[in-house]
Formats: sequence, structure tokens, C-alpha cells
Amino acid sequence: MDDTPEQKEENFLYLTRAGIDTHQEPVVYMREDCHVCRSEGFSAQGRVRVCVGERSIIATLNIVTGDLLSHQKAALSDSAWTLLGAKEGDKAHFKHALPVESMSYVRGKLYGKKLGLEEARAIITDIRDARYSDIQLSAYVTACAANNLSLDETIAITRAMVECGQRFHWGDGIQVLDKHCVGGLPGNRTTPIVVAIVAANGLMMPKTSSRAITSPAGTADTMETLTTVALSYDRMREVVRAQGGCLAWGGSVSLSPTDDIIIRVERALDLDSEGQMVASVISKKLAAGSTHVLIDIPVGPTAKVRSNELADVLATLLVETGAALGMQVRTLISDGSQPVGHGVGPALEARDVLAVLQRGAGAPQDLRQRALTLAAVLLEMGGACSAGEGLALATRTLDSGAAWDRFVAICEAQGGLKTPPQAPFRRPIPAQKDGVVALFNNRVISRLASLAGAPNAPAAGIDLHVRLGDKVEKGQPLMTLHAEAQGELEYALDFYRAHPEVLRIEEEVV
Amino acid sequence: MDDTPEQKEENFLYLTRAGIDTHQEPVVYMREDCHVCRSEGFSAQGRVRVCVGERSIIATLNIVTGDLLSHQKAALSDSAWTLLGAKEGDKAHFKHALPVESMSYVRGKLYGKKLGLEEARAIITDIRDARYSDIQLSAYVTACAANNLSLDETIAITRAMVECGQRFHWGDGIQVLDKHCVGGLPGNRTTPIVVAIVAANGLMMPKTSSRAITSPAGTADTMETLTTVALSYDRMREVVRAQGGCLAWGGSVSLSPTDDIIIRVERALDLDSEGQMVASVISKKLAAGSTHVLIDIPVGPTAKVRSNELADVLATLLVETGAALGMQVRTLISDGSQPVGHGVGPALEARDVLAVLQRGAGAPQDLRQRALTLAAVLLEMGGACSAGEGLALATRTLDSGAAWDRFVAICEAQGGLKTPPQAPFRRPIPAQKDGVVALFNNRVISRLASLAGAPNAPAAGIDLHVRLGDKVEKGQPLMTLHAEAQGELEYALDFYRAHPEVLRIEEEVV
Repeated sequence: MDDTPEQKEENFLYLTRAGIDTHQEPVVYMREDCHVCRSEGFSAQGRVRVCVGERSIIATLNIVTGDLLSHQKAALSDSAWTLLGAKEGDKAHFKHALPVESMSYVRGKLYGKKLGLEEARAIITDIRDARYSDIQLSAYVTACAANNLSLDETIAITRAMVECGQRFHWGDGIQVLDKHCVGGLPGNRTTPIVVAIVAANGLMMPKTSSRAITSPAGTADTMETLTTVALSYDRMREVVRAQGGCLAWGGSVSLSPTDDIIIRVERALDLDSEGQMVASVISKKLAAGSTHVLIDIPVGPTAKVRSNELADVLATLLVETGAALGMQVRTLISDGSQPVGHGVGPALEARDVLAVLQRGAGAPQDLRQRALTLAAVLLEMGGACSAGEGLALATRTLDSGAAWDRFVAICEAQGGLKTPPQAPFRRPIPAQKDGVVALFNNRVISRLASLAGAPNAPAAGIDLHVRLGDKVEKGQPLMTLHAEAQGELEYALDFYRAHPEVLRIEEEVV
Repeated sequence: MDDTPEQKEENFLYLTRAGIDTHQEPVVYMREDCHVCRSEGFSAQGRVRVCVGERSIIATLNIVTGDLLSHQKAALSDSAWTLLGAKEGDKAHFKHALPVESMSYVRGKLYGKKLGLEEARAIITDIRDARYSDIQLSAYVTACAANNLSLDETIAITRAMVECGQRFHWGDGIQVLDKHCVGGLPGNRTTPIVVAIVAANGLMMPKTSSRAITSPAGTADTMETLTTVALSYDRMREVVRAQGGCLAWGGSVSLSPTDDIIIRVERALDLDSEGQMVASVISKKLAAGSTHVLIDIPVGPTAKVRSNELADVLATLLVETGAALGMQVRTLISDGSQPVGHGVGPALEARDVLAVLQRGAGAPQDLRQRALTLAAVLLEMGGACSAGEGLALATRTLDSGAAWDRFVAICEAQGGLKTPPQAPFRRPIPAQKDGVVALFNNRVISRLASLAGAPNAPAAGIDLHVRLGDKVEKGQPLMTLHAEAQGELEYALDFYRAHPEVLRIEEEVV
């Protein structure tokens, strides 16, 4: 029997929405005994192209073995439905998805080949267009993990990430300031304070931030407890035109749109890649139209960067990648030996930010000092003052209330200033003995706050009551766990009991 | 409000079977507004522990946003249902799955740490128990890919893979022969012939084979078109006791059970790992109780192993890993410049095997010669003849019909000899010009046969009509594509048109 191409016309099913959220990976559900599965030879977890008219997506096939679906229908997961722009009853055709060609570059990378611009473009475009399954995304992230990307590869990936999304233009010759922290230090939420100080001095700082990767809060997560952060490009421009700065979430404006997809997989693997991190940071800044960027690199035994040598390597990679793409980058290596401020988690960090901006009596001094130091460099980079005078100007701006006023004005322009939520479930953790606080484990603290629900549960996290060097007595609360759900509080408590190294108390040396 | 542990008792749902096949990854479906999701703070793609009494599994959460489920129920995918051993209406409790601790070893590996026995045991046991999500499995496979495992790591992983499954014992001091081909050469289906010759000479060769990894057929796939290959341990013992050999699928007897899980991900990534391949091969042989193993390593520009240097490295890794675990391994480097026999795909290869065993006029001579060469070495290793006399003995055994008789007896003992299926859809591929066949691309041929449906569609594949050096005329059929489904035939044809390098014809030099 020969094949007759005309039969293909019959090869359709009517689409329906499955009502299943599979997160980013698009899934199509089909009966194993439907005529399409039989004639195309599809099997479970296969990659299938779903076509409606001129539009098509690649989805992972889940086979319906029960009676969820009629023989004439195929169902799409929420993400597949949205990606395809499907309507109930759309007539869809199906075929095997061709192998994603750019995966050959990922394989080549594993065998020691370098990723050039062409390869990076192919991979990043395929990721943006959801052509990679979760298994393939994980292979890409893993292949680039650890210190496995060269400067040239990092530049290529950065350029590809910028090109594949929207890009802001604030005007020719206009100086656009930005800052970033490479992370790993819980509670280091300086950005809202820095933006307020810089904008209050007439410089332009249209800040877009990402959500947490493996940490319990990113700036976007924290700001979301205070105002609206999902701003359109036009809305952002209005806010910046009026206030000189904004505090928006980068993802909602399609800046470097592959970043969130890659971040989800990095989070599931609890894995960061140095080169991918640089590409992520620099591409977001470039896409945001930034020209002058300051990057904070906290160093400590349990911070993301563990030694000054590693910090120098990273700093060089950031500066050179920026320079290759026409952006001036400066770095600042800071103390990463313990969390910053009291709160860890979106709402708890927002509370600390407000305290500093409002010059409250209990405002965390370490957070204040770090924000002032960073703002000082930016004020000098932006020419708001001479070299060496930045710190005095930043301090005046904060202490006069001008920074707080500007922060309120920015939040109002973004949709109104909100009060951060408070967690309904709380549990203090008492000291087990007398002594001195000798060590914080930032990684375990971050993990603990994450298990309590942060950042998905914005009120969740940890409120720290002690700092390095503090004398404590047995029974005194060291910290309080905050959670929005009973299960999460218990989960965090279980973890704490299994990991007492969160915080070490040593006997006082007299 | 403080947490009260007693509330946990209320934290259950009734289980139902979703009737969805998600392949190996266990999935749990829950309503986003059910009390468990709300109280536990679960979100889509989160990893959830599902507990029924003392039994529990980790599953990936898909959130039901529509009306598929009642508020009192959670549904499980087919694999989750089987893994948990669930019954309709079981009362299940749910909590966040603790992070899989052994993933920290995978991360460490990416940062250059070596995998020791403890790390390998933890990873392999977690994979066996389905604690790794597909994203995590992919990271493990990728971290071990390319040439990224040392001899010691390979030995550690091999040992861990053997330990975590069933193990055969054929009796103390008994010599158990085995063979393996590292693959990459389409149609190289010598095993059934070799087993028949060796067993007919009174040696013991209880062969277990795996299914195809990235190739269009494994020995288990081919043998499945001829007889039953899914044998229990007891059934295998009976067959071997009676016939001296068997031709079974390794997966059905839980030998090195993580292998199939790892293979699925390697296949999705079209990625092999040298160390993981050695661990896979040697662990299966050890678990099968083999003491003397011959490994065929085809070398060619488009075979899995491309040069004699690489073959030597692989041979050393195989021999040393075997030796470290008490097994004698010999290797044989063979010509891998073109496919073996005529057929590529389970049933088409079975047809060639039958032709050689039955001494048919059209039997492929290259397949015959390769099988005789391998059988010769095994007959000598096993002491059935003196060194140097193996080839003569093997040839006599085949030509006398003794090998065919033994093959029939083995198949009968396994459940009966079947006739391989024939494909309903076929399409000859004509030569585009006159000339001489100058080059085969084994990789593209394998891909073409896979796209035609092999090995999932057992009758699918390619029937080759020419060999290297053959003179061809324009319009003469070079090969015939076989498929079980219309869509797959067209898919393969599309691929062929886009990849004419399957086979190169050059002008004849006069």
C-alpha cells in the first residue's frame, strides 16, 4: 500500500482546554486510541506540533488512557492554550515535531565545542519560542553551569538574549543608570532605597528587576508587596518621565524573555551558572537601555561568591561583557558574611526598606549603609556630584526625607503604595544555649525562608533578631519563622531541626 | 496564630486515577482551590510527597484549573498510580517533598568534584525510587555526558547500578558468557546468531539485552518480533537450563533497573555518555551474572566511535571497569563504515538474522561474517576449543544447521517462534544519478529509521538495497522506507528530502 498525502486532511481533532496548569511546558492531551495518535504513531512524552491555521506550537504529549476526552478532541494545558492562542473548538492538525536543531549545539558544547553567536541565537530563540522540553532546557542549563562558559560565549549568549526580546530606548545620548546585586545574601534589599536617592537627585534610573532565582526574594518580589510591578513599557515610560525612576518587574515588559524560562529550571535544579548569570544580568540591563551599571558582589563563606579571587573573576567577566556590548559596568565587592537587615522574604524585606527610607528608630543600619555606599557610586558615575562627594550627597538625600518622598511618588505613579502583608503563622526559634553568635549560614537561611514559602507566599520568611557578635542567652529568640500556610511553617520547622547550622552560637571567650 | 500539628490529620484527599500516561515521571493532579493546595502552599510543577498509610511517592504537581476534579479528590497519572500501588478512593496525605539530597552531588560534579561510591549510591538509589524529576534526571545525564566521568567514577556508578537491582547467580565457579555491541552501527544484529552458535557448543550464554537508546533497534526490540522477551527470572533460568542460552529483555527482570530510566532521558536528548554507557553495559552484565564478556566496538566516521584512538580509550575503560568488579572483559574493534545486513529496524533486522541462521541464498554475508568472528572469540574464551580454532568451530556450527536448531529451541522455550511483522506503508527511494555508492552516514540512517517509527513501530525502518562500492543507475532503488503509520512515513520522507547525505553517490572513476 502506498501513502496518499490527501489523507492528511482528515488528520484533525477539535481543541478543548484541559484546565490543567503545567507551568511553562506546553502539554497536549490525546486519547491513545484516537485516529490521530494511531495514524501518526504518537507515544507518551513525545513532542508533537499542534497546528491551527498558520499558527503552531510544540507540546509534550500526555496520553489519555481513561475517559477524560472524546475521540474527536484533543486538550491543551493552560500554557499550551495561551501560547497557541487557541479557541474552544478550533480544528487542529498534528504532526511529529521535528528534532530541535539547536540542541545539536548543546550537545556540541558538552563535547567541548564553543557556543558562537549563531549557536547562541539559535538556542535562545528556540527557548523563547517554547521549542525546548523541560528535559532539553535542563540539559542546556546544566551544560552552561558551573564555570563552563568563556567570555566570548557569555557575550554571544548575552547578545542573543537581548536580541530576542523587547528593548527600551530612552533617547540618544541619554545617560541611564542601573544597579544589580549578584545575590546570595539574604535581605540585601538596597535597590528601592538606591533608586529613590538617585532619582531624587535628578538622574534617570528606570529599574527593572527579576524575581528570585534560588533565593527567597528578588527585588521584584519585594516591591510587589509595596506597589504594582507588572508595568507595560508605556506605563514604565510615564513613571520614569515623571519621577526619574521606577521599580518594575523585568518579565512583564518582555525584556530578555528567555531569562524567566531559564531561571525556572535553574531554580528546580538549585543551580546557578556564572556565565549564564552574567548573560542574564547584562542582557536585562542592555534591554532596559541602561548605559551605566553598578554591580554589587557580596563575598563571604556562604554567600554566592565565596572569595575575593572569585569575585574578581566575576567582576572582570561582568565588566568585559558589558564593554563588548557598549555598556559601562562598575563593580563593588561587599561584605557577605551575614544577612542584611532583619527580614528575609518579600514582605519582611519591604518592612526594612520602609524603615530605612522613613528613618525609623529601629531601621537596620547595615542596610542603610550599604544603600548609601551604592547610591554614592551611582551619583558620581552619573555626574550628580564630583568624585568623592557621593556619600555625603546620598546621606543628605536620605536624611532630608527627599528619598522617602521620591519613593512614595514612584509607588504612587506605579499604582499606589500598599502595606506589605503579614504572615498569619509565626514561630519563634529560641537559642539552645548561652553564648555569642559566631556564624550565619546564608545558604541554609535562604533555604529555610524558601521552605517557609518565600517568595511565592510574600509574607513568608524569617525575621532575624540577632547579628554576628551578639551575646545571647538560652531561650532568647534568635529569629521568628513567618508562613502563610500551616504546612509550610511545619515544613520549615522540620528543616530547621534537621539543619541547626543555620546559625552557630559559640561559648564566649572571656 | 500559632500552628497546631493536629490540623495535619485533616490534610487529606481521596485518590482517583487520572487516566493520563505521563510516561515515567509520576504526576499528581490537584485543584488549585482545594484545601490541601491552599494549606500547604503548593504551586504548579512543585514536587509533592503523596502518602497512603506507610507508602509514599514523590510526584510533580499539575494544577487543575478547570472542573476535572472534585474538591475532595486528587488524581494520579498512570505511573504515579502504579508506583504508589494506589486503589480508587485511597485516603492520601500530601506534603512538600524534601529536596532530594543527592542532587547536591550532581551539582558538586558540575563544579568539578568527583563522584565516589557513596555519592553514586545515593544518586542511583534516588533515580530507581523515582525521586528525580525529569529536569533533575536530565541534569544528571548531562553532567555525566561527553567524556566527563573518570575510571573511578565509572566503577562507582557501575557498582551502584548493580547493587540497586536484582542479580542473577548461575552457580559458584560456573562460567557465564556474554557479548555486547556499543552500538552506532545500524543493522549490526549479531547477538541472536552468536548466542545460538555458543549455546549449541555447550557453553552457557544467558543473554539479556536492552532496548534501543538512540538507535532504531536494540537486540531486545528485534527479538521481540521473533519471540517473547519479557521473561521473569525463574522463566529465564528454565530456558537457560534447558538450552544453554536465552535472548531476553534485561528490563523485565529488574537488572540494573535505573538503566531504562536514564536511557529514556538520553534518548530525549539524543545524548550518550561514555562513562554512563560503560556503567550501563558492565552493570547489566554483572547483574546478569556474566563472568566472560566480549564487547564489539565498531569504528567509523559516522559510527558511535569515530577513531581507533577513541575505541582504545573506550576498550580500556570497559576492560578496567570489568576487572575492578571481577569480570573478564575482551573487546573487538570492527569496521563501522556502513550499516550491517540489509534491514534497519526491529522486524527488518530479524529477517536478516533468520536468513543467516537458515543459510538462505540472499543472507547478508557481512552479518554472517561478523557473527562468526564474535562467536569464535567466545568459543575460545569459554574453552569450547583451543585458541585459533574458534572460527572453524563457529562456521561448522552455523553451516551444519546446529545453530538454527538451537535458535528455534530457545525461541520455543521462551514462548514460541513468531514471524516478524511487515510494514503496511512502504516507499522506495530512487538514486538521483548514475555513479558509485561512496559513503553511508550511519547517524542519519539511524535517524531516518527512527523517524519512520522504529523501534516503537517494530515493522518500521529501512531496507537497504546497495552497499559501499556498488555501481548504481539513476532511478534504481537505493533503499525502501517501511512504516506502520502514514504520518511516520511522510515524516521520514520529509527528513530524507532535507538530508540527502544519508548516502552519497559519486561519479565512477574510469
